Amino acid sequence: MKFRLIKSDKSARLGELHFDKGIIHTPVFMPVGTYGTVKTMTPNELTDIGAEIILANTYHLMIRPGKEILSAHGGLHRMMSWQKPILTDSGGYQIWSLSKKRKINDEYVEFDSPVNGDLIRLTPEIAMEIQKVIGSDIQMVLDECTHYPATKEEASLSMKRSEKWALRSHESFLKQKGDDDSACFGIIQGGMYPDLRLENLEYLSSIDFDGLAIGGLSVGEPIDERMMVLESLMPKMSENIPRYLMGLGTPIDIIKAVSVGVDMFDCVIPTRHARNGQIYTHSGVLKIKNSRYINDLEPLDAACGCYTCSNFTRSYLRHLFNCNEILGLRLATIHNLSFYIKLMDDIRKSIQSDTFEKFAKNFIQSYQQ
Amino acid sequence: MKFRLIKSDKSARLGELHFDKGIIHTPVFMPVGTYGTVKTMTPNELTDIGAEIILANTYHLMIRPGKEILSAHGGLHRMMSWQKPILTDSGGYQIWSLSKKRKINDEYVEFDSPVNGDLIRLTPEIAMEIQKVIGSDIQMVLDECTHYPATKEEASLSMKRSEKWALRSHESFLKQKGDDDSACFGIIQGGMYPDLRLENLEYLSSIDFDGLAIGGLSVGEPIDERMMVLESLMPKMSENIPRYLMGLGTPIDIIKAVSVGVDMFDCVIPTRHARNGQIYTHSGVLKIKNSRYINDLEPLDAACGCYTCSNFTRSYLRHLFNCNEILGLRLATIHNLSFYIKLMDDIRKSIQSDTFEKFAKNFIQSYQQ
Repeated sequence: MKFRLIKSDKSARLGELHFDKGIIHTPVFMPVGTYGTVKTMTPNELTDIGAEIILANTYHLMIRPGKEILSAHGGLHRMMSWQKPILTDSGGYQIWSLSKKRKINDEYVEFDSPVNGDLIRLTPEIAMEIQKVIGSDIQMVLDECTHYPATKEEASLSMKRSEKWALRSHESFLKQKGDDDSACFGIIQGGMYPDLRLENLEYLSSIDFDGLAIGGLSVGEPIDERMMVLESLMPKMSENIPRYLMGLGTPIDIIKAVSVGVDMFDCVIPTRHARNGQIYTHSGVLKIKNSRYINDLEPLDAACGCYTCSNFTRSYLRHLFNCNEILGLRLATIHNLSFYIKLMDDIRKSIQSDTFEKFAKNFIQSYQQ
Repeated sequence: MKFRLIKSDKSARLGELHFDKGIIHTPVFMPVGTYGTVKTMTPNELTDIGAEIILANTYHLMIRPGKEILSAHGGLHRMMSWQKPILTDSGGYQIWSLSKKRKINDEYVEFDSPVNGDLIRLTPEIAMEIQKVIGSDIQMVLDECTHYPATKEEASLSMKRSEKWALRSHESFLKQKGDDDSACFGIIQGGMYPDLRLENLEYLSSIDFDGLAIGGLSVGEPIDERMMVLESLMPKMSENIPRYLMGLGTPIDIIKAVSVGVDMFDCVIPTRHARNGQIYTHSGVLKIKNSRYINDLEPLDAACGCYTCSNFTRSYLRHLFNCNEILGLRLATIHNLSFYIKLMDDIRKSIQSDTFEKFAKNFIQSYQQ
């Protein structure tokens, strides 16, 4: 992977990630394809709406379909018929959020499979091995996601373990890399404590990572606390590698994070909320199941040119949700993802023309109406 | 509507239905779009797989979204963004199969809405009015679908009522038709009694219908009984109008019905079975959830060129079903509908080249392996 920083507009950055499989324009939003499918979408549709990279979850894929089947297909790209880059998380976050039993020490983490209760062991080495089998283009180190809220001591202990795992993950990555152009990203932890975050950044900067992620945010903290962490951390990060804020967020969250220099985002919000009938528009969230849309012949968002908005009314969408029709989930997903991807495109254009601040202000003003 | 009979190969017929909205090549299979959506499919996808006409259910659409919303959209074509012809049933069949309470006399049928329990009244005139609001290109008369099994007296009484309703339906159709090229089809009833069927055919032939359907089949009768009815009825039907066998069927059912001269089919089998993981292939039905496919890297059907078979393995499809992923339902539906539409295409080519009998024999032999 090669990262090219094209220009900055104050702290907002315009860049490109180069892979043999394609170029990714940053700031970028990565749709989430947990089980090797971005829910309801075909890979062709993802390409049509302009997705340049997707995220897949190592934790889920190691459980289903498992390493053997992924390997038999020659990796996830071929299995799911997606030719562009894939980023995989390492499974760390899900172990804390999804597994009921878990045992952790500096050597490994053990957890029960939510599918059949089997005990599964993950080490930094195993996490990287699975990501290699998946054929991931951007592989994340195994980390311990610090819970929220956490005392400074808890955050520090958790961070120290993640440091050891980061080094082992990177060594494993290098060992198995071969001659492909895959990348390995470290993950900055340290809870809501700026000094811990900076200490962790300094440690991780001593390892030759291709990019750095900010983990342990979007875990329930108030946006002010999150922005405080980002604002203290971002100016200290290298300009020469991409910065990825894991698991974020709403359109406003993303715009604010771009303003302090974040390059990459992923989140289940646009896809999950679509399936609940929550539609993202330029004037805010529209709840399509609401009876006020029963005879509304407007598109979901008149300023959107997606397949859904070009062909169907709010009334029809509401009818589909009312009848539990899968097409409703599909059309809402196409729209929400298109909205997010178009938002990133607008953000990039505004950085290009040094008008990001103005764009952000206008967007937020109209969005909160 | 204009019907053109191109040629026959023994009793099998090759024809065309001409509408301003498009040409339909017969024998044709019509995907079912109950609530104004062929389940899981966009209209673009239906066009891509070669669908030339779809069926929508008047009974369902009059309940949800209802006449007012359909009317506000200017009809179903615009509401669901489907530009090709639509055939609508009259609601008769669903009143018997879906409503719990119903009251029937020669004047009207009343039934309770399965959505909110409201009492709904349907007359031939109302049924045709709703089909006009839908903008249906082929409108079916309101009939009473004779249950199975039925005594000859029951079948006769039911048929007589349907005759009165057929006449009233046709009169209503003509009154409201205007200058569009929509068509109205009668429905032959008479249970499993060939003499009643012929009596009904004679009566319906006295009305100037654009086509005739065979109703009251595919209601649980053995295939031999169904074929006996069809074989006695078909030779007496006019050659100059299309013949539509309602609600049928499996690939074998369809091939057998084509062999005695049926032109049009509709059925929920390919779409409903797809969502249950039952995949139609040239060698029979494949149950994709079966563990034997867990590591099977073949496409669903190597002889199929659909999007699903061109891009994905059985193993991936099984994984999607295993994880309850909507993409699994979609890919299975695309395949099953493509399989049915390709089957009709193969049937038409074989009639064109006077080899239908050979085609049917080969298909059935390979299918039952």
